[in-house]
Amino acid sequence: MEISKDIYEFGRHTDGEASMRALLGGKGANLAEMARIGLPVPPGFTITTEICNRYYKDGNTLSQDIWGNTKAAVKNLETQQGKIFGDRDNPLLFSVRSGARESMPGMMDTILNLGLNDETVLGQVKKSGNERFAYDCYRRFIQMYGDVVLGVKAKDENSKDPFEEALDAAKEKARVQVDTELSADNLKELIASYKKIIVEHTGKEFPQDVFEQLHGAICAVFESWNNERAIVYRRKYRIPSEYGTAVNVQCMVFGNMGNNCATGVAFTRNPATGKKEFYGEYLINAQGEDVVAGIRTPNPIANLKRDMPVVYDQLVNVCKTLESHFRDMQDFEFTIENDKLYMLQTRNGKRTGLSAIRIAVEMVEEGLIDKKAAIQRIPADSISTLLVPIFDIKSKGQVRSIASGLPAGPGAASGSIYFSAKKAEEMHGKGENVILCRIETSPEDIRGMLAAEGILTSRGGVSSHAALVARQMGKVCVCGAGKLGIDYSLKKIFIDDTVINEGDPISIDGTTGEVFIGKLETAPSEVNQVLQGSLIPEKSYTYRLFNTVMEWADGYRRLGIRTNADSPKQARVAMQLGAEGIGLCRTEHMFFENDRIDHMREMILADSTAERETALAKLEPLQRGDFEGIFKEMKGFPVTIRLLDPPLHEFLPHDATAIELLSQKLHVDQEKMKLRVASLKEANPMLGHRGCRLGISYPEITRMQARSIFKAAADVTQAGVKVDLEIMVPLTAFPAEMKNQTDIIHGVAKEIISETGMQIKYKVGTMIEIPRACFCADEIAKDAQFFSFGTNDLTQTCLGMSRDDVNGFLPKYFDLEILKTNPFASIDLVGVGGLIKMACERGRSTRPDIKLGICGEHGGDPDSIKLCHQYGLTYVSCSPNRVPVARLAAAQAVLSE
Amino acid sequence: MEISKDIYEFGRHTDGEASMRALLGGKGANLAEMARIGLPVPPGFTITTEICNRYYKDGNTLSQDIWGNTKAAVKNLETQQGKIFGDRDNPLLFSVRSGARESMPGMMDTILNLGLNDETVLGQVKKSGNERFAYDCYRRFIQMYGDVVLGVKAKDENSKDPFEEALDAAKEKARVQVDTELSADNLKELIASYKKIIVEHTGKEFPQDVFEQLHGAICAVFESWNNERAIVYRRKYRIPSEYGTAVNVQCMVFGNMGNNCATGVAFTRNPATGKKEFYGEYLINAQGEDVVAGIRTPNPIANLKRDMPVVYDQLVNVCKTLESHFRDMQDFEFTIENDKLYMLQTRNGKRTGLSAIRIAVEMVEEGLIDKKAAIQRIPADSISTLLVPIFDIKSKGQVRSIASGLPAGPGAASGSIYFSAKKAEEMHGKGENVILCRIETSPEDIRGMLAAEGILTSRGGVSSHAALVARQMGKVCVCGAGKLGIDYSLKKIFIDDTVINEGDPISIDGTTGEVFIGKLETAPSEVNQVLQGSLIPEKSYTYRLFNTVMEWADGYRRLGIRTNADSPKQARVAMQLGAEGIGLCRTEHMFFENDRIDHMREMILADSTAERETALAKLEPLQRGDFEGIFKEMKGFPVTIRLLDPPLHEFLPHDATAIELLSQKLHVDQEKMKLRVASLKEANPMLGHRGCRLGISYPEITRMQARSIFKAAADVTQAGVKVDLEIMVPLTAFPAEMKNQTDIIHGVAKEIISETGMQIKYKVGTMIEIPRACFCADEIAKDAQFFSFGTNDLTQTCLGMSRDDVNGFLPKYFDLEILKTNPFASIDLVGVGGLIKMACERGRSTRPDIKLGICGEHGGDPDSIKLCHQYGLTYVSCSPNRVPVARLAAAQAVLSE
Repeated sequence: MEISKDIYEFGRHTDGEASMRALLGGKGANLAEMARIGLPVPPGFTITTEICNRYYKDGNTLSQDIWGNTKAAVKNLETQQGKIFGDRDNPLLFSVRSGARESMPGMMDTILNLGLNDETVLGQVKKSGNERFAYDCYRRFIQMYGDVVLGVKAKDENSKDPFEEALDAAKEKARVQVDTELSADNLKELIASYKKIIVEHTGKEFPQDVFEQLHGAICAVFESWNNERAIVYRRKYRIPSEYGTAVNVQCMVFGNMGNNCATGVAFTRNPATGKKEFYGEYLINAQGEDVVAGIRTPNPIANLKRDMPVVYDQLVNVCKTLESHFRDMQDFEFTIENDKLYMLQTRNGKRTGLSAIRIAVEMVEEGLIDKKAAIQRIPADSISTLLVPIFDIKSKGQVRSIASGLPAGPGAASGSIYFSAKKAEEMHGKGENVILCRIETSPEDIRGMLAAEGILTSRGGVSSHAALVARQMGKVCVCGAGKLGIDYSLKKIFIDDTVINEGDPISIDGTTGEVFIGKLETAPSEVNQVLQGSLIPEKSYTYRLFNTVMEWADGYRRLGIRTNADSPKQARVAMQLGAEGIGLCRTEHMFFENDRIDHMREMILADSTAERETALAKLEPLQRGDFEGIFKEMKGFPVTIRLLDPPLHEFLPHDATAIELLSQKLHVDQEKMKLRVASLKEANPMLGHRGCRLGISYPEITRMQARSIFKAAADVTQAGVKVDLEIMVPLTAFPAEMKNQTDIIHGVAKEIISETGMQIKYKVGTMIEIPRACFCADEIAKDAQFFSFGTNDLTQTCLGMSRDDVNGFLPKYFDLEILKTNPFASIDLVGVGGLIKMACERGRSTRPDIKLGICGEHGGDPDSIKLCHQYGLTYVSCSPNRVPVARLAAAQAVLSE
Repeated sequence: MEISKDIYEFGRHTDGEASMRALLGGKGANLAEMARIGLPVPPGFTITTEICNRYYKDGNTLSQDIWGNTKAAVKNLETQQGKIFGDRDNPLLFSVRSGARESMPGMMDTILNLGLNDETVLGQVKKSGNERFAYDCYRRFIQMYGDVVLGVKAKDENSKDPFEEALDAAKEKARVQVDTELSADNLKELIASYKKIIVEHTGKEFPQDVFEQLHGAICAVFESWNNERAIVYRRKYRIPSEYGTAVNVQCMVFGNMGNNCATGVAFTRNPATGKKEFYGEYLINAQGEDVVAGIRTPNPIANLKRDMPVVYDQLVNVCKTLESHFRDMQDFEFTIENDKLYMLQTRNGKRTGLSAIRIAVEMVEEGLIDKKAAIQRIPADSISTLLVPIFDIKSKGQVRSIASGLPAGPGAASGSIYFSAKKAEEMHGKGENVILCRIETSPEDIRGMLAAEGILTSRGGVSSHAALVARQMGKVCVCGAGKLGIDYSLKKIFIDDTVINEGDPISIDGTTGEVFIGKLETAPSEVNQVLQGSLIPEKSYTYRLFNTVMEWADGYRRLGIRTNADSPKQARVAMQLGAEGIGLCRTEHMFFENDRIDHMREMILADSTAERETALAKLEPLQRGDFEGIFKEMKGFPVTIRLLDPPLHEFLPHDATAIELLSQKLHVDQEKMKLRVASLKEANPMLGHRGCRLGISYPEITRMQARSIFKAAADVTQAGVKVDLEIMVPLTAFPAEMKNQTDIIHGVAKEIISETGMQIKYKVGTMIEIPRACFCADEIAKDAQFFSFGTNDLTQTCLGMSRDDVNGFLPKYFDLEILKTNPFASIDLVGVGGLIKMACERGRSTRPDIKLGICGEHGGDPDSIKLCHQYGLTYVSCSPNRVPVARLAAAQAVLSE
């Protein structure tokens, strides 16, 4: 086992480098790297992340040998700098900062000006010739040290920090407004108060021994790895706690020694838009903390050209150096001490989705990176930010945010609120923009959802019906906004002491999950305008970015990308966005349109096979029309049509009034209808009479659907349109189910091919969404020519979690880190992944060329797409708006191999 | 590949034997065997079951070579018998009978007297000297042949068989009552009519060519393998269709040649009671078909001693020979032709459960078989027939059977019908015998179920709540009696045009599923009387049988047998029946007793952890008392206690009135309560907020339960009672869930062990009931010291089937043979079995000595027990009444290795 060093130096002598971020943390590794490439870095050393783990292993103590090495490193710095740590004439001062492998901005602690005490402060006065500066440093140090190392905090949430309180008192006494106006004498008095505070709170004097200060500071930084903020942050960003933080001990440079001093933060490009411009802010005569503290408003970096033209030019050059070296947009901190520039930190800058794309594309064009790097660097999800209409950020400030929920369908939507699908549709018909608000949605609400600008629910998670359909339709959706008390009968929402009435305007941001009272304006994305032909490509730089990334991605990926689409319109959108076929066309949504639902209900309420066939006969030509439309739209690309899947009770009304109305309309006895509705009710509909179980119980349904499909295929084939048809049997768990349905489908195909004389290219396959199916996938593959993994249901069954009910416990699971990701968002690797792998292997053992796809919502999730690539699937299928994300993620899966 | 012969002879030359039943069918193999051991068998030959399969493979035709071999076999018989097939002077006649590997009585076709035609009948007249006899044979032959081979049947259900019609007309014309009174001339006329019928129905003459007759008959027997009755029978008894049937062509002997002729069926022991007695019936001057036709009432076999004493003695000897040779009770057919005995068939006799046990035990005592054979020969389920109270068969005839459902809780129960648990309990309290009738039951009904003699539901299958709890409690239960129209508001059952009112007496037979109007009397089983001490063992032969079988079984089995018991009383019953511990003690049932439900509801409705803890504190001492009782009862045998499992809404009332009442009782705002009830409602409660998800969301519940358990354990330990405790965490799917709950439990254990100073032996483990858990069983086993497979839920999740909803499609699945067994009754080998196997392997990889058990309802199912044995589980746990079945099945699993 290689034993790594405890401490790595940087500055005059540098033994770390950028590639060592796991050991040195991001900050330490990049300080070393900057030193290596000749950028002006104040010298210092990094105590490694391994020491952090050792610190915790040793019961939160720093071992003697490490402390010995630390002191040796201090000695080296003294020699280099010609200053002595703790010396009253020529004191060496340090900053002590955390620095983890992954950037965790603001989460952990920092101490500046370490090494000052009642004696060294005098040396600092002498050396700087600036008494006020020296005492300001000292009081800042005591304050930071008191807070971070000694744990002197406000008593409770309502109290003020005791140091801030003393500072306020000092300003009061000196009759000044801001800190910088305090004189050296004021500061000396303040320091005395600070020391008293420390004695009061800790029972001990503020330590005058500089090595005690350093020891305390290093331990405090290690401790801060496990403060509450840091833990929460790590959970959120899935950073393992065993990474640990490094500690960077660095010679102080001062931006606050006078007006030829400054400190700032900057980006090599604009992190919001990605534009190539020097971007940032700075403060003259300030220490780093002042920039972020918000007491003084920092100046835009452009002003520095006027204030300090030489340093400005140096910084512009630093930008070039950094980018050409790190080959990515950098976010850096600098300090100017007496007109001399020092670099204190650099890291890859966080950026918006748009920015990520623009930077990646332009860096390729600039020759800084290659296309592979560009593709890997764009978070796949970010491509979708180019597609959604958004709220104008300014208008957000003008209306009230009243609640928040899960951001389930990205984008922005405003409209009048309505509580039933029917009303939403009616008002939409009258030209109103509508937000459909439901406790939760069901397939009955589809038309209302279609009519609405956005969907808001108080219950249900990221995979609830509302969220699923919303994404499928590209609708804006906020779901599970639990704070909303929705009352259907009063047609009101109660929330805290606000009441929202039917018809009131609200706005929902499906990207952030916010809900606003009032109307915010939105605009469609440029990319969509170009794709739909309302904007010429040359007019849109965003479109150029989008198109470039997509072309590059398509050059790498091996996974096919299909879409989940139920109508010609959805299919068209998806094809515009690059889909190569339909992976899931749900036939049940078609049954909700116009008066079809009544035929459907007639079918469900039928007493005999004959009656059922009569009702089905009415549906057949309608379904046939739907399929013709889709085949025409798809022009020979594959179309996977799933046979009827949901339990029949989803098509029936459930409340007494609706049943009464329907019984009148269909001339069915009301009591009989009530009984039938009740008899179809299920304890666990998810595990009930649905999927192929319907087609097996009522083979006439499968026959009708197969007839509609094949007749439509024959018709469009005759009209010269190519058809590549795949018929999908849902929810098989037993090989005999597949055989049963396949026999019916092949039988109908034979009939219609012989009736029409048309050759129809088709396959019959199944959706794999029940664990048992994976165990007997070899047997199922005897009849199934393709598998499509229905990962939504497979997740529900494999994990025993109803996606409609998980909100009761999943939040707690995330809090406790029992689950790190939502299994309904990203495929659960262990269980669902294990089942998929098994099914792939067993399916291929029977039919080596079996087509394998995925059509759950996971088909649009980058992590899941990577898994699908690893399992060697043929394609993923996702909602139309996720197609670009999937294209990009599929390319990334190849490049990460 | 060995090519077997097509045709096997028996009689003078015999080349088959009993062990060849797969090839020769049961009848053919045993005819050969009887011939071998010197019993008088009319000679013949068997065409093998393989030829049957070949027949179907060749498109329902008999190949030339087989037909050639058949003719050669006929030639051999002619030589042996000195008769010629089709000869007008000395005709050889045959019977042609089916004979499958497994006995399928009455399902397939038989043709007697084959070889008669207009000419050979004259030879038969001459040889028998009995014209009437010869023509009667001929008309019987034409009738059978017309029906079986030529397919002459009644036009529809309302018409009469044309041959029967002609026979009736002939009797009318001759003015006689029964067939035997028809004269030879009458019969000749009848034969003419029969021939006309054949021409009318088939357009062809009745075949006079005897070889054509034989060819047709052989084909018809093969065809009958796939007639509807046979298919239904095979489905029911799980006989694979590829077994095929053999055809036995045998020289005719005649029981109808006169009064020194007879035919009969007999058993070597009484098939109903198992008593060792010659048992059967016969008819003088009759052919085999007459015995079963029911026109003449057969005589008890004892009478034959008077009628034909020599043959009777021969038969008694035949019984001895058969039993000493076949070493099992035989069911045989015989014919006496002119005082000479012929054996036409023998097979192992079907028998009742009681009979199976008695015969097996007595045969061991007689030295006929050894204990191993005895154990293997008793269907494990049959042992339970010794335990259930039963209806007096006579009284069944006196009341009306009005409906039937699934026989879910075996036994017999009568009482007044009530439609709510509350009312059932109230009337039970007043001393009434009560039948609780519900559409379906829920945990809220427990106390009513407890109070009831029997439970009747109109919905739900063999694994529904009603069935499960009923079996657990040993209650009689008929469930899913769909014909019952239960109206709670009117408190009536509507069924056809009968109305049953609340309080009316009904009786339900949980062994057959029948429902009767009126009251039938029952008695407890003798075995139970002995076990409970109300009958001394010496007084009960049944008990001696029971005890003998159990002792033998315990000598062989390696699986431990535990029980699912929630109360000391259930535990006691199970221990009496031989349980070796509790494998599943459900704590939730305890919450329904007395006013506990209110504390529970208070806990559920609590707004804060503090409020919840207050309510839990009230429950703690009560739970502690429960556990003390169980520990005391179990005296150191292991007790597995499962933590709270069901979703909380199961504890709350759901209808408005009940909510109102409860809100008054608990002083909780009614609206708040309504909201809470609504918020706990789940779309798929089976996959919802339950199991360890509760204990994780509300750790105070786990803490309270752990405290109750450990305090109870400490108390009884102090009192000198041994405790072997296993705490079971339900529904884990993620290792971190297990870790979370285990930490809480160990923490509480540590506290209480240190508080009380008592050493408590305990393990913490988990119930494996989610597919994902099987995939990460190695990780879960790091914290889990044992696994108990919850195969009910594992079946639901693995197969995607809600046990409460499967009745919507499972019956159809059985009809279509998509499923051959109910996966809720016997473990699904492919899926659930695959998961169990995986979990065992992975669990052992982490913890080689991990305790593995099963506590689903499958724990009492013999096929599932065999699987559990094969997987190497430590024990199975089942409801108390299934313990003897499990003991026996576990022994059988060893013996079948």
